[in-house]
Amino acid sequence: MTLDVGVLGYRFMGRAHANALSRLEMFFPDAPDTNRSVLIGRDESALEAAADRLGFDSTATDWEDTLNKIDVLYNLGPNHVHVEPSIAALEAGVSVLCEKPLAPTFSDATRMAAAARESPATAGIAFNYRFVPAIQYARNLIADGALGTIHHVRARYLQDWLVDPEAPWSWRLDKSLAGSGALGDLGAHSIDLVRFLLGDQVGPIERLSGQLTTFVDERPVPDEDEPRPVTVDDAYSAQVAFASGATGLFEASRFANGHDNDNTVVINGSDGSLRFSLERLNELELLTGEDRGYQTVLVTDSDDPYVEHWWPPGHVLGWEHTFVHENYEFLSAVRDDETFTPDFQDGLAVQRIMDAIQRSDRDGTWIEP
Amino acid sequence: MTLDVGVLGYRFMGRAHANALSRLEMFFPDAPDTNRSVLIGRDESALEAAADRLGFDSTATDWEDTLNKIDVLYNLGPNHVHVEPSIAALEAGVSVLCEKPLAPTFSDATRMAAAARESPATAGIAFNYRFVPAIQYARNLIADGALGTIHHVRARYLQDWLVDPEAPWSWRLDKSLAGSGALGDLGAHSIDLVRFLLGDQVGPIERLSGQLTTFVDERPVPDEDEPRPVTVDDAYSAQVAFASGATGLFEASRFANGHDNDNTVVINGSDGSLRFSLERLNELELLTGEDRGYQTVLVTDSDDPYVEHWWPPGHVLGWEHTFVHENYEFLSAVRDDETFTPDFQDGLAVQRIMDAIQRSDRDGTWIEP
Amino acid sequence: MTLDVGVLGYRFMGRAHANALSRLEMFFPDAPDTNRSVLIGRDESALEAAADRLGFDSTATDWEDTLNKIDVLYNLGPNHVHVEPSIAALEAGVSVLCEKPLAPTFSDATRMAAAARESPATAGIAFNYRFVPAIQYARNLIADGALGTIHHVRARYLQDWLVDPEAPWSWRLDKSLAGSGALGDLGAHSIDLVRFLLGDQVGPIERLSGQLTTFVDERPVPDEDEPRPVTVDDAYSAQVAFASGATGLFEASRFANGHDNDNTVVINGSDGSLRFSLERLNELELLTGEDRGYQTVLVTDSDDPYVEHWWPPGHVLGWEHTFVHENYEFLSAVRDDETFTPDFQDGLAVQRIMDAIQRSDRDGTWIEP
Amino acid sequence: MTLDVGVLGYRFMGRAHANALSRLEMFFPDAPDTNRSVLIGRDESALEAAADRLGFDSTATDWEDTLNKIDVLYNLGPNHVHVEPSIAALEAGVSVLCEKPLAPTFSDATRMAAAARESPATAGIAFNYRFVPAIQYARNLIADGALGTIHHVRARYLQDWLVDPEAPWSWRLDKSLAGSGALGDLGAHSIDLVRFLLGDQVGPIERLSGQLTTFVDERPVPDEDEPRPVTVDDAYSAQVAFASGATGLFEASRFANGHDNDNTVVINGSDGSLRFSLERLNELELLTGEDRGYQTVLVTDSDDPYVEHWWPPGHVLGWEHTFVHENYEFLSAVRDDETFTPDFQDGLAVQRIMDAIQRSDRDGTWIEP
Repeated sequence: MTLDVGVLGYRFMGRAHANALSRLEMFFPDAPDTNRSVLIGRDESALEAAADRLGFDSTATDWEDTLNKIDVLYNLGPNHVHVEPSIAALEAGVSVLCEKPLAPTFSDATRMAAAARESPATAGIAFNYRFVPAIQYARNLIADGALGTIHHVRARYLQDWLVDPEAPWSWRLDKSLAGSGALGDLGAHSIDLVRFLLGDQVGPIERLSGQLTTFVDERPVPDEDEPRPVTVDDAYSAQVAFASGATGLFEASRFANGHDNDNTVVINGSDGSLRFSLERLNELELLTGEDRGYQTVLVTDSDDPYVEHWWPPGHVLGWEHTFVHENYEFLSAVRDDETFTPDFQDGLAVQRIMDAIQRSDRDGTWIEP
Repeated sequence: MTLDVGVLGYRFMGRAHANALSRLEMFFPDAPDTNRSVLIGRDESALEAAADRLGFDSTATDWEDTLNKIDVLYNLGPNHVHVEPSIAALEAGVSVLCEKPLAPTFSDATRMAAAARESPATAGIAFNYRFVPAIQYARNLIADGALGTIHHVRARYLQDWLVDPEAPWSWRLDKSLAGSGALGDLGAHSIDLVRFLLGDQVGPIERLSGQLTTFVDERPVPDEDEPRPVTVDDAYSAQVAFASGATGLFEASRFANGHDNDNTVVINGSDGSLRFSLERLNELELLTGEDRGYQTVLVTDSDDPYVEHWWPPGHVLGWEHTFVHENYEFLSAVRDDETFTPDFQDGLAVQRIMDAIQRSDRDGTWIEP
Repeated sequence: MTLDVGVLGYRFMGRAHANALSRLEMFFPDAPDTNRSVLIGRDESALEAAADRLGFDSTATDWEDTLNKIDVLYNLGPNHVHVEPSIAALEAGVSVLCEKPLAPTFSDATRMAAAARESPATAGIAFNYRFVPAIQYARNLIADGALGTIHHVRARYLQDWLVDPEAPWSWRLDKSLAGSGALGDLGAHSIDLVRFLLGDQVGPIERLSGQLTTFVDERPVPDEDEPRPVTVDDAYSAQVAFASGATGLFEASRFANGHDNDNTVVINGSDGSLRFSLERLNELELLTGEDRGYQTVLVTDSDDPYVEHWWPPGHVLGWEHTFVHENYEFLSAVRDDETFTPDFQDGLAVQRIMDAIQRSDRDGTWIEP
Repeated sequence: MTLDVGVLGYRFMGRAHANALSRLEMFFPDAPDTNRSVLIGRDESALEAAADRLGFDSTATDWEDTLNKIDVLYNLGPNHVHVEPSIAALEAGVSVLCEKPLAPTFSDATRMAAAARESPATAGIAFNYRFVPAIQYARNLIADGALGTIHHVRARYLQDWLVDPEAPWSWRLDKSLAGSGALGDLGAHSIDLVRFLLGDQVGPIERLSGQLTTFVDERPVPDEDEPRPVTVDDAYSAQVAFASGATGLFEASRFANGHDNDNTVVINGSDGSLRFSLERLNELELLTGEDRGYQTVLVTDSDDPYVEHWWPPGHVLGWEHTFVHENYEFLSAVRDDETFTPDFQDGLAVQRIMDAIQRSDRDGTWIEP
């Protein structure tokens, strides 16, 4: 069986997933065969060039026309495009891998999750950082109780591409297109990562307080005279209490000067602690058992998650490998009609927290999500 | 002129300040001469032994009796002992250096600050981390605008001495004696440090949300059958908005496994960023100007604050040196009748924030301090 | 024009280069088109499986038969196989990319370099670490004089896969097959990297002293009763003086417990210093100009070498990307009939130093290479 | 019993030891009582000022006159002054603590060691880095076999105070006064540290090759018209083979831009590895047992060497504390008539290696020390 894949979106995420698809054959020989069947977008000439470069058989400017020709839709468009194509695909029995966050709003996300529940097809959300070997290694350790009772969680995702007030406007800065700013773009990763690593240990978030901040209110648009307003957050933070009694601090910013892509998780438990940063994604700082200090572990041994597919110990992987692992798991689940996580219910759970953070900020109260 | 110093408290802080006093002559020859006149405490035999070891001329078990014999009172007792002796000393014209936090409660702190305002004597609070060379170096850089407009501040003070649920009860865990837990013991340092480094740039905190958590409700008492209740926080966090629009995250814990004394400050501004951790107190991580990454600066050059008094570059200082610098500045101010900061008004400003954090946690709302 | 590529070797290096070839189309669209024409090896069934997985059109067990069918030979076999196939290919006008070290012995390497000089075809040696973005960035800085006069160079390549005395024998431990051990396998990389980064600044090595050490004399062979002797070095070191007056220390080991693949270069100059480690290959530690400490630079900006072909800042690359860059440059040079470096003369220059290190160790004297 | 201490030298080392003496009473109450009896030097007015500041009872410009009035001589003068005063003191039954290196030349050192053997007094050499808590902790681990069979040792001491060619001449740059440069000043520490940590495991150095380099041949003298020649090494390196089969690399430089005082030791053994740097002297990086990576251990727990005398965990010590520990051990040995190490025989053993490194460099051969 060969899966016909349609991909909506041909820029950053389109390239990341096309690359992932193209590498499965060599490194994951038991992955399903795929055709990169159709690349979907609006700008025909850019689309043609991208399809040629990324190895697609055809292009389409109307996603609806593609649903009867594909087995899988990769929905990699801007957030506001996540909703209708994903729902329509699921209703047509086409499996969907949708980029994060699930939707611009909680109500849209709720509709998408409902469509996923009612569809026999597979609905995955592309929280790719679950597929970092060091993260899966950490999760296994935690599941085995290596950290004991969890007391503290900190998840912080720092970037700095908006520090310059003259950095240009983009759809990511518009509430109607993106839903939120740093919160949805970066915070969604943090919230999912904490759920993935610790969900079984700490339970759901029972209470939270959130803060959203916009530092620069409008930004220039290339080739336009007038600036456009920034209607989303440049940064957010939240403090939370989990059902278990653990506490958490979340934060993301696009104004953290000196940090390109610093997605960090820190956990303190009664029996150990760990730290991870995406900018050193092959490493895990880990303190367990009788350790007197954090070990700096290079998670590249052949028995570390996914590593045997690649290179010998110490031959480090890059950011893009997370997409290969994610595509492998998602496509295998589609082929085998098995469960894939993270799914749309996970996406909805993250969106519920994001929504509560926004409400807490607006209302000036603690919120029970 | 020789200043007669009375010191209330002979344990940890008593040793730290006695050591500081004893080192001024060799390393700060222009410091005032001091007599370690009287060591004040309750347990006479322990007191005698301590006075002998720490080089005091005499001992006293009643602090009131000492006020007419000393020029300066170091109030290093438990928090609940900060209040009356400090006020009485100031009323008697005796200068006071009081350990932090200023008092168990905001109302006590208000009384102390009032006494300080009305007294001709000097009233200092022992926020010793202001006197780390790297911190003063950072402050000077910030004052010179090296970081530009400040966007983010994070101040986190992590310890782990309560992770073990069998760790014994102490006065630090009792609300009536200590006022609060991690908040007052560690958070007070964080709040002061941010005020010191950034006060002029970001202005006061205008809005905050706080969370206090107690993980272990009671603890054993040595030689007692019954455990005693823990009535303070084991950990706290707060998110804040400053008048300038900058945002801040504060946190402290006594449950951060793997962290002995990790007092960290991180700042992101439009023109640069910095990071500091007390466990590497000779270092400052600094990004300014055209830097592409954080510099790891060893702040031990002869023109760095206080360093010329000590050793050549790279011959690192320890934690205790912060007390020497602090004592030098405080005693010089007393002798010269000049202003010393941090003073009781600074202590009160910190206490106001601590109080607001407690109220926010209790009420479940954002607070304007 | 499409280049027909034959690849001799289908294990570790075969996979690394096949992967590189397969990724050029998507990420380096101006690279030559290539056919993975023929995969060459001895074990027919393993060869078939590999060719299928790695995307080769055919297989061959006799390399001589392939030379008239290919434009380029990738010689990725064990060191002793580097010699004859490379020479024959060059004599047949087939371009060669040969893995390092060039040959088991200096005399073999001399013959190979002569063949390269006399052939119109391109003869490259696969010192892939020249193609790390951070390394090329460093080289450009050095060429621009950012470090001033060079005083010290340290190049150290540490692995630990032989620490266990029961780790099995392999061809890499046999002098007749490999030529040398850590020296040729790891030291060759170090020596080339220093030549690449600093050759113009420090000139040739004028004097050196070398030391080779074997810690375990024999090792078990799977499915054999008798162990086989280890006839190469487990570790080497060398101290050198360059023509410029700079000094250098080189070292490699397969017994450096805790180090998987730690290829490190450190340089100190009159105006700056830098440090690089392969285990954090996206980073460069750099001190220049008025810096007070090393900057930790993430070399992933769009104007860093090769980065614009990949992902946005902070989306880190892996070890394998060095092969993609190397293949791109090599194949482009073949197509355009332009110079490619590192070439066989570079390989010979490295081999000359390796040979001198071995002679110094044997004779107990300093050597002028 | 109170020991009368005479101190020859009142600059950097004079201050370091005077400080150490002054702190024993408070922190090491079982240390011998001492009088800082006499400070010895040549410049009377500078001497008076120093004696006053450092707390000495008297001064002397002729060391010979003091020997009948003191119990202990601290010989902290320039290297060429180490010899005669130390020998005379020992002959007079006065105990000696001599700064390192023992002497400018091996033959001088031999005479000093002979005098020590024949004297009933105690003869210590001030290798203060043996008294870093992390170093003693490491030594205990190694003695317990935690690293297994030692394969590799690297000891590197980097400073940068001579990078500027206009940095002024001093006695440290003159062969007749200092004996050697980086080798004796910094290398002596490295060699002793390796002997201390590993002597019992690796045995003596059996074979070595050394290199000495001078980058700047003459330097200006303040207030003089003519520069003076630099007649010692600016940097040295050595590679060695130990009796056990372990190998070692030693290096020191005063031209390592960016390194103020970076005294580093790295050890790899069959069961573990460790790293230490003086610029982070409270830390030890340690890999043992089942560890997957180096632990960053803060060696400040109450059961770590010497730490219970000072502060709670995480309240870091500084460079000067090494002198307090050293003085405590040395003076206790003097009082109790017990053995103190490192003694003059240790100093001689180090000097033997230094001498062999110089001969190897001069002769261009490997040397058996």
